[in-house]
Amino acid sequence: MPSSDTESSDDAAPLIAGIDIGGTKCLGLCLAPDGSVLVEERLPTPRGAASLTDTVARLVETLCSNAGAKIGAVGVGAPGLVDRNGVLRAAPNLTGITEMPIRDMLTDRLGVRVTVDNDATCATEAEWRLGAAAGSSDALLITLGTGIGGGVVSGGALQRGANGFMSEPGHMVIDPNGPPCVCGRRGCWERYASGSGLARLARDAALGGRAQGVVDAAGGDPEAVRGEHVTAAARAGDAGAYAILDDFAWWLALGLANLTNLFDPEVIVLGGGLVEESDLLLGPIIRMYGDLLYAAGHRPRPKLVPAVLGEHAGAMGAALIASSALRSHG
Amino acid sequence: MPSSDTESSDDAAPLIAGIDIGGTKCLGLCLAPDGSVLVEERLPTPRGAASLTDTVARLVETLCSNAGAKIGAVGVGAPGLVDRNGVLRAAPNLTGITEMPIRDMLTDRLGVRVTVDNDATCATEAEWRLGAAAGSSDALLITLGTGIGGGVVSGGALQRGANGFMSEPGHMVIDPNGPPCVCGRRGCWERYASGSGLARLARDAALGGRAQGVVDAAGGDPEAVRGEHVTAAARAGDAGAYAILDDFAWWLALGLANLTNLFDPEVIVLGGGLVEESDLLLGPIIRMYGDLLYAAGHRPRPKLVPAVLGEHAGAMGAALIASSALRSHG
Repeated sequence: MPSSDTESSDDAAPLIAGIDIGGTKCLGLCLAPDGSVLVEERLPTPRGAASLTDTVARLVETLCSNAGAKIGAVGVGAPGLVDRNGVLRAAPNLTGITEMPIRDMLTDRLGVRVTVDNDATCATEAEWRLGAAAGSSDALLITLGTGIGGGVVSGGALQRGANGFMSEPGHMVIDPNGPPCVCGRRGCWERYASGSGLARLARDAALGGRAQGVVDAAGGDPEAVRGEHVTAAARAGDAGAYAILDDFAWWLALGLANLTNLFDPEVIVLGGGLVEESDLLLGPIIRMYGDLLYAAGHRPRPKLVPAVLGEHAGAMGAALIASSALRSHG
Repeated sequence: MPSSDTESSDDAAPLIAGIDIGGTKCLGLCLAPDGSVLVEERLPTPRGAASLTDTVARLVETLCSNAGAKIGAVGVGAPGLVDRNGVLRAAPNLTGITEMPIRDMLTDRLGVRVTVDNDATCATEAEWRLGAAAGSSDALLITLGTGIGGGVVSGGALQRGANGFMSEPGHMVIDPNGPPCVCGRRGCWERYASGSGLARLARDAALGGRAQGVVDAAGGDPEAVRGEHVTAAARAGDAGAYAILDDFAWWLALGLANLTNLFDPEVIVLGGGLVEESDLLLGPIIRMYGDLLYAAGHRPRPKLVPAVLGEHAGAMGAALIASSALRSHG
């Protein structure tokens, strides 16, 4: 956000850019002082650290040019484990990237202050400052995409953990005899309650002959069934599809109950691609979640709400974090 | 702790009392300014809210008399869900107690400021301020007793959650097809990794004929096997006992790995009765825990250390919290 007291140039006050690096595209934006998006731009995510640095730099230059203002600082959200020194230690969804000193590479390239955080941490900051968790001092964001990401606000502060790795809820093991996970273990929550988890539950049902409507929606091949075929069949009234969604909602609710027992949030914000189906999903989740809570009769239930900032959340949060860092450290 | 600037009497500065309400006994103490225990006293835990209030009041009077000083404030740790208004909402290990307004009852009775928190939250404060997690800004305490309790320090602050219910790790479901739990669900972590979990694993092994040495230690009855029979047989070199401890350590490590993925602590302090066996247990736990961490090759491993304050931790932490509250609010 513009911050007139950090720059005494004759030009317009410099803007803060936020960049969200995704598995397929990078989204950059600058925020207006009221939190609305002033300018935004997208580029495909390339392979490798050097190309990724180029892409972020090009996004920043384009934002700068489109906004007609200088960029005073850049915040970045990256999909993976980002440590306190701005090193992207591991990023399963980015090809050819591991142990990348992304903050230092971008600082050298851009010549301004750069902050880098986990993408879900950034989205949590945005939903907390400007979105569905505004005003709460204890909130969780859970993003339901291909996997499950998340972020934590506790005691009125965005939490990063000792290393910057706070909140990898997708790899909470909830069934050690469950299906294998890409991380090398079994029964991680995201094998059940993510977009890919929904697809897996649906394929199991299809192969078991319990989801003909869903198989039809997928063109007749049980192996081709994906999450969107389930929701499409459910919207057409298919009972098999509803049974799969109930199963999915139960696993999602189980993990949310675990997180509630651990974090005691006031509000849980559900984000990510699956939230576009929240009209189908939220009802069963809320119903099952209440039954799964520890000491349910003696505690208020956290609010379960959909995220409101959509695909902008990560980049918005990255910009907000960069803006805070600039105010704190000049 | 004495705080001369909050009282201008001619007498000695008033002391802060800390009381830890346990399932079988209540422990009260006052701390010296250096954090050491000045006086302490125990009484059996009675049944019912009125008797419990009496017991805490008698403990405070005895501490007052033994220390030869006035009590300026009282901190209490209670085993259960304590809300932000000092109401003990649920306490499975206290007979006849539910929805008890314990803070207000004690304030009326004692005429001084009273703070009430969950007992494991209090113990976390003590281990963080004066014990095994001193100096860390991100730490977990996990107490292994009949069940599993815990507390969280994140971002340099003791966390309580929205309602005061932060951190009930014992009821994190890690196997929805697992054994039933007193909470009404199945496969809670404490069914595997607590003192009662160890006993259950041992009985299963004994009934399966895989633990004759442990059965012998229990006097020959497989149904009578408890955790201490496993550790006794292991200390006598029994291979079946070691196999049970390895199984136990694996389940404990699985839950610790889940918590690490969620909280990213720098240090995990293991407390509670089982920690007296830490020489037997800690080795296998540390070995298995490393294998179960998400992205283990890209992150420092949190330190796993035994608690150092023993049975005093809860009462010490209660006193420290009461002392902080007195300084903050006068």
